[in-house]
Amino acid sequence: MNLAELKKQVYDCNLELVRRGLVIYTWGNVSAIDRGNGLVVIKPKGIEYNLLTADDMAVTDLDGNLVEGSLLPSVDLDIHLELYKKFPNAGGIAHTHSTWATAWAQAGVDIPVMGTTHADHFYGPIPCVRQLSREEVEHDYERNLGRVIVERFEAIDPVSMCAVLAPGHGPFTWGSSPEEAVEHSVILEELARMAKLSADINGGKAPVLPEYMAEKHYMRKFGPEAYFYQKR
Amino acid sequence: MNLAELKKQVYDCNLELVRRGLVIYTWGNVSAIDRGNGLVVIKPKGIEYNLLTADDMAVTDLDGNLVEGSLLPSVDLDIHLELYKKFPNAGGIAHTHSTWATAWAQAGVDIPVMGTTHADHFYGPIPCVRQLSREEVEHDYERNLGRVIVERFEAIDPVSMCAVLAPGHGPFTWGSSPEEAVEHSVILEELARMAKLSADINGGKAPVLPEYMAEKHYMRKFGPEAYFYQKR
Amino acid sequence: MNLAELKKQVYDCNLELVRRGLVIYTWGNVSAIDRGNGLVVIKPKGIEYNLLTADDMAVTDLDGNLVEGSLLPSVDLDIHLELYKKFPNAGGIAHTHSTWATAWAQAGVDIPVMGTTHADHFYGPIPCVRQLSREEVEHDYERNLGRVIVERFEAIDPVSMCAVLAPGHGPFTWGSSPEEAVEHSVILEELARMAKLSADINGGKAPVLPEYMAEKHYMRKFGPEAYFYQKR
Amino acid sequence: MNLAELKKQVYDCNLELVRRGLVIYTWGNVSAIDRGNGLVVIKPKGIEYNLLTADDMAVTDLDGNLVEGSLLPSVDLDIHLELYKKFPNAGGIAHTHSTWATAWAQAGVDIPVMGTTHADHFYGPIPCVRQLSREEVEHDYERNLGRVIVERFEAIDPVSMCAVLAPGHGPFTWGSSPEEAVEHSVILEELARMAKLSADINGGKAPVLPEYMAEKHYMRKFGPEAYFYQKR
Repeated sequence: MNLAELKKQVYDCNLELVRRGLVIYTWGNVSAIDRGNGLVVIKPKGIEYNLLTADDMAVTDLDGNLVEGSLLPSVDLDIHLELYKKFPNAGGIAHTHSTWATAWAQAGVDIPVMGTTHADHFYGPIPCVRQLSREEVEHDYERNLGRVIVERFEAIDPVSMCAVLAPGHGPFTWGSSPEEAVEHSVILEELARMAKLSADINGGKAPVLPEYMAEKHYMRKFGPEAYFYQKR
Repeated sequence: MNLAELKKQVYDCNLELVRRGLVIYTWGNVSAIDRGNGLVVIKPKGIEYNLLTADDMAVTDLDGNLVEGSLLPSVDLDIHLELYKKFPNAGGIAHTHSTWATAWAQAGVDIPVMGTTHADHFYGPIPCVRQLSREEVEHDYERNLGRVIVERFEAIDPVSMCAVLAPGHGPFTWGSSPEEAVEHSVILEELARMAKLSADINGGKAPVLPEYMAEKHYMRKFGPEAYFYQKR
Repeated sequence: MNLAELKKQVYDCNLELVRRGLVIYTWGNVSAIDRGNGLVVIKPKGIEYNLLTADDMAVTDLDGNLVEGSLLPSVDLDIHLELYKKFPNAGGIAHTHSTWATAWAQAGVDIPVMGTTHADHFYGPIPCVRQLSREEVEHDYERNLGRVIVERFEAIDPVSMCAVLAPGHGPFTWGSSPEEAVEHSVILEELARMAKLSADINGGKAPVLPEYMAEKHYMRKFGPEAYFYQKR
Repeated sequence: MNLAELKKQVYDCNLELVRRGLVIYTWGNVSAIDRGNGLVVIKPKGIEYNLLTADDMAVTDLDGNLVEGSLLPSVDLDIHLELYKKFPNAGGIAHTHSTWATAWAQAGVDIPVMGTTHADHFYGPIPCVRQLSREEVEHDYERNLGRVIVERFEAIDPVSMCAVLAPGHGPFTWGSSPEEAVEHSVILEELARMAKLSADINGGKAPVLPEYMAEKHYMRKFGPEAYFYQKR
């Protein structure tokens, strides 16, 4: 895939965030990485979705230097770069302020596995990372948020858990492609909503899906003997 | 109705789940049974709704053997087959991960009859079956879920109660046709939402519809002297 | 307005319930009265909205006898007739199972005046009438529900309060025309939602709008010195 | 910009409230000010959005006298005028009865800063002003509501905080243009929703965004060294 195609793909994925109701105005962003050429394509900063074109996508190297395009990259670029550097399987990253995932992020807690909708797509609780210190916020904020996410994922596999909550802020998701990253944002939003509702129905206490149920559902889709998907 | 027509009907019913907002991506499935020929038509597994055609519907016999089509049936096929075998009036079955019904399923409790919207369509609380054991999950999972549903319906009439919650998972509904099965999924979702909201308004305690009110509402639609419906 | 026009008007108002998201399938109904000729036009029973035509509207006299049309009137006709007989200013009546108003009805409590959105349209709490006795449900149910509503309105002015909740069931609204009846259903649904949310934010206790604020807001729209509306 | 253009702009902004789902029927209103000529353009009162034309917008002077147009201005005109007089940077004002912001207004409490979605746009808690006295409501109500808002903003900068809740009533927002005022109404509604949901997830207690996080997020967009936006 050449760079023009990748820009078109990233553009489409950004608009998909709008179509799915996950972002408004300038909120959120999607990026993709071309690992062969060491290039990242990302939404430009501070421009509304309905004014974007595929050509507006910003292209940077892995140090964040603008390589192509007349518009500057998203202010969240450094977060994306940190994740790409440490998550070798990530081909695309999405960030939204979707309502329910953001509400969990604002509450600052992990989303426990309460059902198979969660277990079908994410292996374990959705981690909410630690709050940044004043120092980390005041100097090199976006890069430090990326680092804090990576820090938490030292103990988590970013292939089977491709979502994270930035506390007080909102969700980031990734996948093998930007399309998959967006799909994970959509699914995260829905399971975040279901999780809160089912905890409420359960008298305020998070119901617990038996671990063997979570294991079964994740593995029938993504395990070595997966049988959920098929190709035509 | 010939098989091509039944495939078209099942295809339409699957898309109706999307139009009604009950499913996204590959979630959920609808099937129908041709009892005369012992054939079941069901959505193929792991393919997104917007990529499906009527011709893609998988056709199996009652043992689950693929009879027609190049795509494999839904991984949930065995659940459907168990229900068709034990519920002789079921002509179609629908499974969704709709938000509110799934939230009740994740909480693992029956939905009590709190109003006439419920009583108009379902006779009694919506049952949430028992959680499967580790053994039942690890071996022949889907068939065992079907069996656990059937086990609970030994004491329930599957004609007047055509919905069930799989704990930690989500709802299954059925009806005399796949269209009716889908309609029951739509209505279940709405009453599940109303039930939670009215319990909240009631201080967290489920309000109880007097049994004679529930009886009246169900019977004026489906009892021997029903007067709710008319044919042109 | 002749009868054909009134049937078209009632038909349009029934479809407006669908467009506003207040009903699905066969739920709900709108009627209008031609007081000069003693005729009531109402949605036929048990037919889905998307299959209706203006010509399908049923026309009855005030005793409920079918005067015109080949389809039978809504099963809720007798409720409408009781209200038309006792509320001389009612020109149209709407019944829905809209989510939030129904949730309050299921909880069986009046909706207190918590804000000006409520006070702008309804003068006082939205009354939830008493539950019917077993006897009242088993014999002449629909007429008895109408009577129980009328009974409660002996102490309420049906001009300034044009909405009611049937406990365990759902809302009925009315107005000088069927259009106004539908508008009141839409507004009732929104204020029912706001009421629950604001009580939650207020720690579970319904906030109270000062009575002089409610008075001001209702009177600036509908009082003798109203200044809210204007005609072109 | 001439007056005809300003009327078109105000008309478009009023319709944007409908498109964004913040108002129905005659609820809400948007105005703009032409400070050079001392003129205010505002939605006419009591007319539904779908019946409005750009030409219907009412034009008044700063004392509320109708200068142009055959329709009378919104009953809320005096509130707008008070704000324009005291907030010199306000170019446009929007008022809605949007669900979640109104629910907070009905609860009568400030919306705390619980996340960066809030901090990205509003500097500090969204103030809910004091309830008006009986006297203030009964005489010159709308002007007094404007005064009570201005009173609260003696201690708040109306440039960095361009939203307020009228208790028991609903939100008002403003901005350098009517478009920006509407955008602030949309964002306020979303953060009001997120705030309630995150407090619920947090066990009913409002989570607190560290002050240095709020500072960082507001300042990276609007501070002297802001780097969030860019111009083409």
